[in-house]
Amino acid sequence: MKEENNNEDTMAPFKAGSFNTVTIVGVGLISGSFALALKEKNLAKHIIGVSRTQASAKKALELGIIDEVLPLEEAVAKSDFIYVAIPVDATIPVVLKIMDMITDKQIVADAGSTKFALSKALKDHPMRKRFVSTHPMWGTEYSGPEAAVHGAFAGRACVICDVHQSDKKVVAIIENIYRLLGMNIVLMDSENHDIHAAYVSHISHITSFALANTVLEKEKEEEAIFELSGGGFESTVRLAKSAASMWVPVFMQNKENVLDVLNEHITQLRKFKASLEKENVQFLTELIENANKIKRIIK
Amino acid sequence: MKEENNNEDTMAPFKAGSFNTVTIVGVGLISGSFALALKEKNLAKHIIGVSRTQASAKKALELGIIDEVLPLEEAVAKSDFIYVAIPVDATIPVVLKIMDMITDKQIVADAGSTKFALSKALKDHPMRKRFVSTHPMWGTEYSGPEAAVHGAFAGRACVICDVHQSDKKVVAIIENIYRLLGMNIVLMDSENHDIHAAYVSHISHITSFALANTVLEKEKEEEAIFELSGGGFESTVRLAKSAASMWVPVFMQNKENVLDVLNEHITQLRKFKASLEKENVQFLTELIENANKIKRIIK
Repeated sequence: MKEENNNEDTMAPFKAGSFNTVTIVGVGLISGSFALALKEKNLAKHIIGVSRTQASAKKALELGIIDEVLPLEEAVAKSDFIYVAIPVDATIPVVLKIMDMITDKQIVADAGSTKFALSKALKDHPMRKRFVSTHPMWGTEYSGPEAAVHGAFAGRACVICDVHQSDKKVVAIIENIYRLLGMNIVLMDSENHDIHAAYVSHISHITSFALANTVLEKEKEEEAIFELSGGGFESTVRLAKSAASMWVPVFMQNKENVLDVLNEHITQLRKFKASLEKENVQFLTELIENANKIKRIIK
Repeated sequence: MKEENNNEDTMAPFKAGSFNTVTIVGVGLISGSFALALKEKNLAKHIIGVSRTQASAKKALELGIIDEVLPLEEAVAKSDFIYVAIPVDATIPVVLKIMDMITDKQIVADAGSTKFALSKALKDHPMRKRFVSTHPMWGTEYSGPEAAVHGAFAGRACVICDVHQSDKKVVAIIENIYRLLGMNIVLMDSENHDIHAAYVSHISHITSFALANTVLEKEKEEEAIFELSGGGFESTVRLAKSAASMWVPVFMQNKENVLDVLNEHITQLRKFKASLEKENVQFLTELIENANKIKRIIK
């Protein structure tokens, strides 16, 4: 492919400091919040929504998240920037399809929670330099266009992966957008991203799902759970409301790393079990005091 | 013991709608926040603090949480109401000691996270009717007088246990205080309390401690944890900052219930592990969709 770094023209879409037309593929929590933020910061004049489900597209229009609904092909043809935020299993074929359609004046980015599989799939694509692999580390347990909120992303990290595979100026534009949304940019290769994400995000979701199942399996008095949930339960189980359609593909794509962390987590829980069974107060104290070291890392 | 229900005099300490003098035993997160709330709501004119550690007592005085520091005996002798909020292993001997000192014009309550062992220890005490067993289901991961906050407790549940063992009017006074602090009263026997608490509070702390240990054991790049912690990790690991001095006695006193729930939790995590290892997408989806049912219970 031609060297684009010295071709000023390729940056035309963002020359005026904002995009004329942006397409968001998926009109849910992340893409919807991203669209709202682009509008708020005057970074996009017109936003097109692409969605598999007509009801979601209609809702996103109603909510003012998008200005227009179009099929993928038409939307891409009209857009300076295409932002893909859909479940990670769908991300790969959809991004590949978009990459086959774009010119070297367009920019594509995704917001998926796993990055390595996508990176491999895109590696040799002739338009690879027009793509930026991103993971804004923000979310809630809700989904769909109704879950989109104003002021999302601010104060959180946004990981940008494998930047050496993207055009420098394209990366600069995307970094700049996330910065304007209040995010801190963290650069990482996609393989490392997936390892770290298993620790700081994926395992939290699995423990939360498992905790919900534990309580639902054993605690038959739902009234009691409801009334007493102030005792720490709500914060640890919050993520258990998250959608399977989003998380199953994440866990499957990041299977090896997630299993690694999950095995360690079960080992750590077994230590608590053993210390309790043996009434080993000293061991139990050590386990908790070790866990307290997390204060060093999480404010 | 004499029947106090018809003796108006025994309610003298609270006749004017507030206590003259209250002692808080322990000057930490719960007792400190309770003292601040009593003052704010004009429910106590003078608050004495009792603490094993001089530094904490001094800090509580400085922070205006208490008005005076005294040894336990002197404090109890001067007080209408004695509120005990210390680790649950210390609660039993300290409450027993206080019960041996009080007259039938004084009221005692505790705020411990376990209730059954205390209930058994107090069952046959001649002053049992002057005691109310309470568990305000509020807390943070912090401890000590500096952790005490204004406006704590509001909107949360307060469990009051074994009310038939307390004088009705004494219970009414304590209920009223918690209601004035904005809490919803839930009545329960202490054995049931401990079962429910294992589900809605104790297991959440264990999973959080174990999650912190998992990450600290395997994720050597602390910088990455720090930067990426927006991805759900913070909310699930927040409780891992909680103090061993408080939680070891809770887990030990509620050992059987906690082990029951912990075993089930490990079983549930193993289902996630099996579904991932076998790449059984359908089973993984079912596990997550089942966990989503927690929405029914937790808003």
